[in-house]
Amino acid sequence: MLRDLLIRNRSYRRFKQRELADKATLLDLVDGARLSPSAGNKKPLKYLLSFTPQRNALIFPCLAWAAYLKNWPGPAESERPAAYIVILRDTTISTNLNCDHGIAAQSILLGAVEKNMEGCIIASVRREQLRNVLNIPDHLEILLVMALGIPQEKVQLENLPTDGSIAYWRDEQNIHHVPKRSLEDIVILPEDEL
Amino acid sequence: MLRDLLIRNRSYRRFKQRELADKATLLDLVDGARLSPSAGNKKPLKYLLSFTPQRNALIFPCLAWAAYLKNWPGPAESERPAAYIVILRDTTISTNLNCDHGIAAQSILLGAVEKNMEGCIIASVRREQLRNVLNIPDHLEILLVMALGIPQEKVQLENLPTDGSIAYWRDEQNIHHVPKRSLEDIVILPEDEL
Repeated sequence: MLRDLLIRNRSYRRFKQRELADKATLLDLVDGARLSPSAGNKKPLKYLLSFTPQRNALIFPCLAWAAYLKNWPGPAESERPAAYIVILRDTTISTNLNCDHGIAAQSILLGAVEKNMEGCIIASVRREQLRNVLNIPDHLEILLVMALGIPQEKVQLENLPTDGSIAYWRDEQNIHHVPKRSLEDIVILPEDEL
Repeated sequence: MLRDLLIRNRSYRRFKQRELADKATLLDLVDGARLSPSAGNKKPLKYLLSFTPQRNALIFPCLAWAAYLKNWPGPAESERPAAYIVILRDTTISTNLNCDHGIAAQSILLGAVEKNMEGCIIASVRREQLRNVLNIPDHLEILLVMALGIPQEKVQLENLPTDGSIAYWRDEQNIHHVPKRSLEDIVILPEDEL
């Protein structure tokens, strides 16, 4: 059943923009991140929520989309994210972040999938612009923006092509294809246990 | 049901050492990490598996345990981890790691919980010693060691004490207590939506 969530959880970039998420839903996702491990149990992460069309419209221009799709500027109006969770590090709590934001992001994404939403972790963010439009105080470092919503596209997993390229692509039907390395390619076992 | 996994997933440090995990179980956990998001879809992570008493004994001395428990040197013989997954970055694939290892670690931990195992993410690792005992090639950067097994201790969540300390502690019954920040302490909402 976790496997079902892991498989369904793809990086979606086109959403049903008008099917907004409500505050309670986003709080529930953040609570999943809250319950997740943190380096030295410091828990330096804070989560800024956005779930209104007005605030979502402030965040969207701060994001870069799908680096491998050179001719696609990002989701058009009507297919933009319905909500965002901005993951921040409170620098007054800890400088030792390690991979806390990855742990939190994965908990949020799997929680979203369980609620029939999907998301995309965006690290390519115009951080100063985002700080200004959302009035984020200086002691909170902007780490990631999680774009969320009900998906409005198809995403399909593929085996790695023979040239080894990991770049995703879209076909004529606008289906988004994502190559994945095989299990054999990523596992290291001692020779006597292969 | 994800929430159940998130709550049950605590950082355990004492295990039923003799209840070994098998290779198929660990491969299944790594497959969950394989299906998880990766920055730019690069997937630079590799996973070294250890599930025999012999190899586990090589890894254990390379790890530091529970920084806040000053009088506890780590799990005694018989309560040490039954398996390990060492998360590595293939530096020939990508220098842009972002938080991939956190995402992968959380997928592995939640998968372990579903299999009635628990784990602990260990970042305090004697990396050169580990590289030597496991013959890890130089192009693989050691990121994290995941200790895994059937738990042999009780871990209990607590509210943050009034002094704000996030240090975990053990009581006379050897129960491990872990303070967590509240949801209100980590969520940022605009004033008009509080």
